[in-house]
Amino acid sequence: MRNVVLFKDALGADKFLLGGKGYGLVEMTSLGLPVPPGFTITTDVCKAYYANGGKVPEGLFGEVRAKVAEVEEQTGKTFGGEEKPLLFSVRSGAPFSMPGMMDTILNLGLNDVTAKRMAEITKNERFAYDSYRRLIQMFGKIAMGADAGSFEKVLEARRKAAGAKMDIDLSPQELRGVADEFKRIIKEETGKEFPQDPYVQLEMAVVAVLGSWNNERAKEYRKFYSIPDDLGTAVNIQTMVFGNFGENSGSGVGFTRNPSTGEKKLFGEYLPNSQGEDVVAGIRTPVGIDGMHPALKGRLQDVANRLEAHFKDMQDFEFTVEDGKLYTLQTRNGKRTAQAAVKVAVDMAKEGLITPSESVARVEPEQLEALLHRRLDPSSKDRPVAKGLDASPGAASGMVVFDTEEAASLGGSQKVILVRPETTPEDIKGLIASQGVLTMRGGMTSHAAVVARGMGKPAVVGCSEIEISMEGGFFKTKSGERITKGETITIDGTTGSVYKGEVKMVDPEPTPELTSLLQTADGVKRLGVWANADTPEAAVKAREFGAEGIGLCRTERMFNDPKRLPIVRDMIMSLDAEARKRHLYRLFPFQLSDFRGIFAAMGGKPVVVRLLDLPLHEFLPSVEELLLDIQEMKERGASKEELEGTEAMLNRVRQLSEHNPMIGHRGCRLAITYPEIYEMQAKAILQAAVELDREKKERAKVKIMLPLVSSVEEFKILRKVVESAAAAAFKELGTEVEYQVGTMIETPRAALTAGEIAEHSDFFSFGTNDLTQTTFGFSRDDVEAKFIPKYLEMGIFQRSPFDSVDTVGVGRLVKLAVQEGRKSNPGLEVGICGEHGGDPKSIAFFDEAGLDYVSCSAFRVPVARLAAAHAALSEKTKAVTA
Amino acid sequence: MRNVVLFKDALGADKFLLGGKGYGLVEMTSLGLPVPPGFTITTDVCKAYYANGGKVPEGLFGEVRAKVAEVEEQTGKTFGGEEKPLLFSVRSGAPFSMPGMMDTILNLGLNDVTAKRMAEITKNERFAYDSYRRLIQMFGKIAMGADAGSFEKVLEARRKAAGAKMDIDLSPQELRGVADEFKRIIKEETGKEFPQDPYVQLEMAVVAVLGSWNNERAKEYRKFYSIPDDLGTAVNIQTMVFGNFGENSGSGVGFTRNPSTGEKKLFGEYLPNSQGEDVVAGIRTPVGIDGMHPALKGRLQDVANRLEAHFKDMQDFEFTVEDGKLYTLQTRNGKRTAQAAVKVAVDMAKEGLITPSESVARVEPEQLEALLHRRLDPSSKDRPVAKGLDASPGAASGMVVFDTEEAASLGGSQKVILVRPETTPEDIKGLIASQGVLTMRGGMTSHAAVVARGMGKPAVVGCSEIEISMEGGFFKTKSGERITKGETITIDGTTGSVYKGEVKMVDPEPTPELTSLLQTADGVKRLGVWANADTPEAAVKAREFGAEGIGLCRTERMFNDPKRLPIVRDMIMSLDAEARKRHLYRLFPFQLSDFRGIFAAMGGKPVVVRLLDLPLHEFLPSVEELLLDIQEMKERGASKEELEGTEAMLNRVRQLSEHNPMIGHRGCRLAITYPEIYEMQAKAILQAAVELDREKKERAKVKIMLPLVSSVEEFKILRKVVESAAAAAFKELGTEVEYQVGTMIETPRAALTAGEIAEHSDFFSFGTNDLTQTTFGFSRDDVEAKFIPKYLEMGIFQRSPFDSVDTVGVGRLVKLAVQEGRKSNPGLEVGICGEHGGDPKSIAFFDEAGLDYVSCSAFRVPVARLAAAHAALSEKTKAVTA
Repeated sequence: MRNVVLFKDALGADKFLLGGKGYGLVEMTSLGLPVPPGFTITTDVCKAYYANGGKVPEGLFGEVRAKVAEVEEQTGKTFGGEEKPLLFSVRSGAPFSMPGMMDTILNLGLNDVTAKRMAEITKNERFAYDSYRRLIQMFGKIAMGADAGSFEKVLEARRKAAGAKMDIDLSPQELRGVADEFKRIIKEETGKEFPQDPYVQLEMAVVAVLGSWNNERAKEYRKFYSIPDDLGTAVNIQTMVFGNFGENSGSGVGFTRNPSTGEKKLFGEYLPNSQGEDVVAGIRTPVGIDGMHPALKGRLQDVANRLEAHFKDMQDFEFTVEDGKLYTLQTRNGKRTAQAAVKVAVDMAKEGLITPSESVARVEPEQLEALLHRRLDPSSKDRPVAKGLDASPGAASGMVVFDTEEAASLGGSQKVILVRPETTPEDIKGLIASQGVLTMRGGMTSHAAVVARGMGKPAVVGCSEIEISMEGGFFKTKSGERITKGETITIDGTTGSVYKGEVKMVDPEPTPELTSLLQTADGVKRLGVWANADTPEAAVKAREFGAEGIGLCRTERMFNDPKRLPIVRDMIMSLDAEARKRHLYRLFPFQLSDFRGIFAAMGGKPVVVRLLDLPLHEFLPSVEELLLDIQEMKERGASKEELEGTEAMLNRVRQLSEHNPMIGHRGCRLAITYPEIYEMQAKAILQAAVELDREKKERAKVKIMLPLVSSVEEFKILRKVVESAAAAAFKELGTEVEYQVGTMIETPRAALTAGEIAEHSDFFSFGTNDLTQTTFGFSRDDVEAKFIPKYLEMGIFQRSPFDSVDTVGVGRLVKLAVQEGRKSNPGLEVGICGEHGGDPKSIAFFDEAGLDYVSCSAFRVPVARLAAAHAALSEKTKAVTA
Repeated sequence: MRNVVLFKDALGADKFLLGGKGYGLVEMTSLGLPVPPGFTITTDVCKAYYANGGKVPEGLFGEVRAKVAEVEEQTGKTFGGEEKPLLFSVRSGAPFSMPGMMDTILNLGLNDVTAKRMAEITKNERFAYDSYRRLIQMFGKIAMGADAGSFEKVLEARRKAAGAKMDIDLSPQELRGVADEFKRIIKEETGKEFPQDPYVQLEMAVVAVLGSWNNERAKEYRKFYSIPDDLGTAVNIQTMVFGNFGENSGSGVGFTRNPSTGEKKLFGEYLPNSQGEDVVAGIRTPVGIDGMHPALKGRLQDVANRLEAHFKDMQDFEFTVEDGKLYTLQTRNGKRTAQAAVKVAVDMAKEGLITPSESVARVEPEQLEALLHRRLDPSSKDRPVAKGLDASPGAASGMVVFDTEEAASLGGSQKVILVRPETTPEDIKGLIASQGVLTMRGGMTSHAAVVARGMGKPAVVGCSEIEISMEGGFFKTKSGERITKGETITIDGTTGSVYKGEVKMVDPEPTPELTSLLQTADGVKRLGVWANADTPEAAVKAREFGAEGIGLCRTERMFNDPKRLPIVRDMIMSLDAEARKRHLYRLFPFQLSDFRGIFAAMGGKPVVVRLLDLPLHEFLPSVEELLLDIQEMKERGASKEELEGTEAMLNRVRQLSEHNPMIGHRGCRLAITYPEIYEMQAKAILQAAVELDREKKERAKVKIMLPLVSSVEEFKILRKVVESAAAAAFKELGTEVEYQVGTMIETPRAALTAGEIAEHSDFFSFGTNDLTQTTFGFSRDDVEAKFIPKYLEMGIFQRSPFDSVDTVGVGRLVKLAVQEGRKSNPGLEVGICGEHGGDPKSIAFFDEAGLDYVSCSAFRVPVARLAAAHAALSEKTKAVTA
């Protein structure tokens, strides 16, 4: 266990020990960047603190004192000393960045004596007392538990009395008075004095930061990002430098590239005469890189170059200018939009900074979702009612909510846009539940912007064209619009625009960088990525997104078309096989042209057509609808014939209705009792293939799939049905084409008997939606609403098994079926076509399980391609380290 | 391959080669019993015949001729000879008895010349031509395919013309004329002459018998009794002896013990001046043993003694008396009623003929079902409308059906009683589908009686007090009742009584022999046999039947009591946990007294109490009911309050309703969201145990079971709920008792993660009903009606997986869960409480899988005890032969 390490002595230790901030400080120190000296209390201490029931390890503060002494030596200043007072910041820093979630206290070491002394030395009384009041305010709130609002009220009253707009406009005397009042508040609220002893301050601050690892918002944040609760935070104690020293001072944030677009151009914001937290809090709007002094800009560019050359990734760094001298206070891999992530990765590979494989690993598949978010329809005529900063791209509509708690509670069931004067770390819950965020104040690096980008949610920030009345429950725009709570607005984080009402959106199109990254990914991945598509249009879309085949073409959707539904109903109403057949063949031309279109669109790539799966009664109106119809008919004196027809329908619906339709008479079971349905479908599929073949258009790669098999006998019987239909069609048409017949594995029994089934089946496709339903005994339509949220809340599930495949139960069946299926049929092709096919974690599992391909909705194909590449990379890593 | 063997040369060959009949003849020959000489064409020939596409193996008929020559030598007669004509019977004989299902031809070797010669030699022209016309009739029908009805018409016309009541009353001249007319019919109908060459007759007869293995009724019979289709039949060719030689001749059937009661007393029927098929066909009613000549009786008793001493089982033998000389023609293990099977087994063990273990093996567990069938309530005041022979015990009610096809098609969905003048092998389908059978004609050994006893179905035969009008569709009784098709009757096969309407029935009680057999079985079996019981009364019943514990006590049934339902509804209507708790505790006293009663009844034996499983909405009225209520309330102007109450109920019902309730919000999922329910139940269970313990009545062995677990996390959370409820109860009561907490394994995921679950669970109980539903994805409520019958018909299933456990899929999960569960918790107790717990085949599987016990409904406990013993015996056999 290493407890306390100096920045200059810790090179080689990792983020898990030092936390991200500590690690950055150590690395920057070693690069020779201007880092104010200091030391890190490691995460081991935090772990020991919690293991110990909230007590710091014995001897810790002795070690701290020893390190303070070393820093005193490095700086030539003394902590609590009157000659050259040394002040410290105390900051949290976890292994994974949790911006603003934990606590920070600045200016430690000031007390009544040293504050006065600082004023004398710096000849800047305003600065000294501004620093002091900041310490008391932060310390009071964080280390002593006083109410933050009480401090704000004092400041507000002072500003009012002085006619000052900002805190900065208060006079030194007023600031000293503020400091006194703050001390009084602490005494009143906590019963204790603000400690004058710097070491007491330091120790209390350390304990407060350790405690902030487990505050509510930090826990919330970790849950959202699946950060383990037992990593702990480090505590960084660093010599203070002062951005609030005067107009020649300031603090800022730099990004080595643009975090929103990824453009290779230094990006930054700078707030003169401020301390770091002022920039992040977004209370004053800072100046951009182009507003800075060219000398500062040059020095920042130099820092940026050295950081990227070292870290080989885009860096987000904090800096402070004290009386003209630049200090770097923090660096970390910069959070970025999905678009920026893709561009930075592709550009860095081009620049030779990283390898192509590394560029693939640099973008999280989940992030691509944001790129594949819908955007505003360019042809829309809607005009924005306000404009702000384009802080996080993408568009979203939702109802206006001003309160973060309200957003959190409404957001589960409705689409909401969180609208706030500015956001603070306390708003994290509301942000998670919202479609997007709109703030009045704050820059591109304000809390709202950073968090929204991280989550891939649209954000418009610093929108000074709106004015929020929290009490009134509305906001007004410069143009005079008044929008009340509950009204719908649309925000476009790509342009910074705000619209009234819901604006039409369009499907996304991949950028050139994305296309390039995905091509690299394709070269890395082993798994095929196919798409689920039921129509020729969807097939075209699937190819555009890079699908290598169609893994699931559902034929029942073709039956639901309004032109076809009446025929389907006639078929269902038929009481004998002959009549049923007659109506079925009225559907034949429709099916034929569907399949022609899909095969043509796929240009010879494989297409897996699933024969009818749904229970027949799903095509019929409900009992309640029909009862109402009959009542209405009776009232208007409808003809006997009409009435009887509807009554017959009602009877048939009742006859076909089931207690548990999901596990009832559907899928291949339907075809065992009504084989003519599959017969017709098989004919239509193969005739389409023959016709295309003759027209020399495409040689379709046809795979006919039988759903919901639970016994090899079902499969054998229906394979024969398909084969005789095929033989009949080929004879009639005078041409044969190749085709395969395979099965979905979507019941546990199919998986458990996969060895037998594979002897007769050309391919398997896991239907993990149904397999999850049957393996758990979960009716998705019921459980997702009724208890899965509770299960997630209680930690029974980390994620819903419908979102990410349950590797333990369902996954075990998948692996078993792959193994035993391949054993009895080595040529067996195996894929998955449930919704899990587009989930990166699930894809990693399917890769490991040895599947040949995953199939997902067209829009998730890019995510799946990248995830498949990640899976292949991680397999390689495993192979190397094994 | 052995093709043709003489009876006297084949000792040592088994039933699979010789068929049952051939085996019996060989054994009897070796015992020195008076068996007419002959030989057997083995089942190998039949297999070759079918493998060959319906052609007998080359050289077969050469071998046959050689054996004929040997028989000629044995008998001193010549086949087709004029001096001493040798006649043969040709009979089928499969490895398993299939009475009447295949063909037999008698009197082969007669032709125009030998018939005349026989008349001269025997000086019995009537006999010779009766024999000859019988040959032509049987041969024409069976070997040449002429219509059986044509022959019957000729006979009928002849009888009419001659004023004769029976065929036997026809004169020799008339019989000769009949023979001539029969030959003409054959020529007319088949275009071929009746063959005069005896060897041609013999060869055609052999081929016809081989062909009858695959006739419809034989296939139907094999399907019902699960006899493999590839065993084949042997063909027995035996010297004819003549029961129709005159009044000093006859044929009969003997049973070494009474096949209906099992009593150790020779039982038989004898029909003077007849050939064997007359007895079996039941056209004339034979005399019983006491009506026979004492000398014959004595000789039969001697045969019976020798047969039992040799075969060590009750034998059913056929005999013929030719001119005073007794011949034995067949013997086999006698089919018997369940009651007889039990008594014979127990008696033979007492007599020292067989060991106790053998006595256990002698009774098929399925047979016991018949003993456990309900019987007529002795206190019923109903009077029978007719009386017949008590051919197969047990009582049944059902609607009268006269047509066998109709019975077969109605019988699937309704209860029918097949009523026939007599039954023939063609009626097998109707018998299978009926609750029982009533015939006008035929004795205790008639086809209907034999088959009904075999199936364990009630039968009343030879009921001459009824007269059936097939055309009129009714039957009349002697007492003047007229009962039409579709009316309900009740038959009591134990007494031979027939009742109009449905007569009240009572539960069965075990006989002393059954009790003794089951005690022996208990000494043999390894598996525990427990019962499912939900009430104190059921628990008492369960112990009476020998249950060693309660494996499933369903608590939701306790909620359905009319006194409790309103409270349950109040609870469900509660919108918050507090109100719910209040209503729940109103149920507490009921649950407490239920559990007290059950624990007391079980006298310290284990009781597994399953906490609430059903979805809440099952306790509420249906949407349709409530809609009707509301309409009715509106019409009668009900109070606003009343209306609102019902509307609230409707809303709640709608809110709770589910798409697939079977896999919805039920079982432990309900308890995760409403833990107060399990809390109350756990308290009630443990308070009941504490109270009994204090009263020093019984130390209850309490096992609390959580249903529908699919994840170890659910189990861990709910185990804690139970444990805190227990701790609270113990604290309140000041006494602690031991208890266990375990889980049902009824979802595939529970089985797949059994290793994890077992770390926290004290026991497992497989809920194979639900496990079958989820493993197949079969909603039992839907699939049993909608397609399982079709699946059985198509051979996809041999038996419904809800009747007999699917060893391949579900069974694999069971084995896996047992193995992995025991691995992580060696003390894990494992049982099964689905309906399969009472199915003998399933029990054999569970024994092999290493379960500790099976639990089934109380009435099946005896079946399960016997099946468990069989399983243990067969495991031992395996161990010995391995």
